[in-house]
Amino acid sequence: MSIKLYCDLMSQPSRTLYILLKTIKCDFETKLVDLRKGQHFSDEFTKINKIQRVPVIEHNGFILSESVAIVNYLSREGIIPDNLYPQDSKKRARVEEFLEWHHIGLRLPCSMYFRVKQLDPIITGKQPEAKTVAGYENRMLQSLDTFSTKWLNQGHDFLCGNTVTVADLFAACELEQPRMAGYDPKEHFPAIATWAKKVQQHFNPYYDEGHVIVNKVINKQKKMSSKI
Amino acid sequence: MSIKLYCDLMSQPSRTLYILLKTIKCDFETKLVDLRKGQHFSDEFTKINKIQRVPVIEHNGFILSESVAIVNYLSREGIIPDNLYPQDSKKRARVEEFLEWHHIGLRLPCSMYFRVKQLDPIITGKQPEAKTVAGYENRMLQSLDTFSTKWLNQGHDFLCGNTVTVADLFAACELEQPRMAGYDPKEHFPAIATWAKKVQQHFNPYYDEGHVIVNKVINKQKKMSSKI
Repeated sequence: MSIKLYCDLMSQPSRTLYILLKTIKCDFETKLVDLRKGQHFSDEFTKINKIQRVPVIEHNGFILSESVAIVNYLSREGIIPDNLYPQDSKKRARVEEFLEWHHIGLRLPCSMYFRVKQLDPIITGKQPEAKTVAGYENRMLQSLDTFSTKWLNQGHDFLCGNTVTVADLFAACELEQPRMAGYDPKEHFPAIATWAKKVQQHFNPYYDEGHVIVNKVINKQKKMSSKI
Repeated sequence: MSIKLYCDLMSQPSRTLYILLKTIKCDFETKLVDLRKGQHFSDEFTKINKIQRVPVIEHNGFILSESVAIVNYLSREGIIPDNLYPQDSKKRARVEEFLEWHHIGLRLPCSMYFRVKQLDPIITGKQPEAKTVAGYENRMLQSLDTFSTKWLNQGHDFLCGNTVTVADLFAACELEQPRMAGYDPKEHFPAIATWAKKVQQHFNPYYDEGHVIVNKVINKQKKMSSKI
């Protein structure tokens, strides 16, 4: 079996797949697509993914994009074990229900806050208006509140019951993104803090390994702001 | 077998499921959740879906939200035939790849254009700024261009090959939404027009039946604007 993972660990779903494949002891090759250098727009990578996004996998020559589609495929191929992504139809439906909600429900507001507050100013050299940032922050807070009160807090340890699944890993990696824009959901939502710690522990040491670059960015920002 | 579909045909994924279940001659009961009357916020419906959204299905007592998760589940349960959603792992991955992309890639920009230009002014009584509408229109056009040139135009009739799948139905229903805000993608993107006609033909008479309310809204708007 040959698996190549095209990824950049600055991307949330790239981290999810990296941590997942490491955790299940899958033998795979990491192919860095450096987003900060614009390598996802290169002719070479566009041939691999016409949509010019990471992550992408190549499994015995079969190329596939979109992280949730990739996890579905790898599960069908027997590469992701049943405990992390159940084959039982109803149990699996609960995981999928969260994964389908999370695109617009969680991923979008958290990543847009990071993008508007942190990424775009670096790329464009222009600071966003305070009103604009406040609007994105407000949408992120609403999303985190829904996540905390309606998906978590259901009387069990993880999103889909008392055992961890891929849904937890996808969500946890998304919630790391706004930390790079100075907002840590764990500091504001106790239910998220309790849950996130369990997810991190389950997937460690690979969870921390997948977040080395993210944590470097955050520490660099903290040092810079302490000097101001 | 008992299936209840909680839906409102003003909602794109509600239409997708309604048309799909009708097409495959599934015996189901339609339970209207009138979004314009705010019935999705009622205590009764909140017990069915804590996220307060349609569509939702109840299959022999099992309640599930999120349209893509629902289609995955119904396919596993043998209710959706293989030709519309293949069980073959690689063929299915191609359908899923599109479905996972379409949430933020297509659904979001098309529905936000409709919401900002048409829905919010009705709800709030306030017209949006021209600059705001232009921003949403621009994002929708970029999305439609990606859809037209990178997902369609791949040398086959439908999104995932020469036979129609659930991916086509999901996409077609999304592209009907901005028509209610005066923008018909088929009039601007020839590849979309050619493809959409084939999708409509495949799923008729149920495609048109699922869009009766949408088309009534559009015809009413046309009559009003012709009087001005």
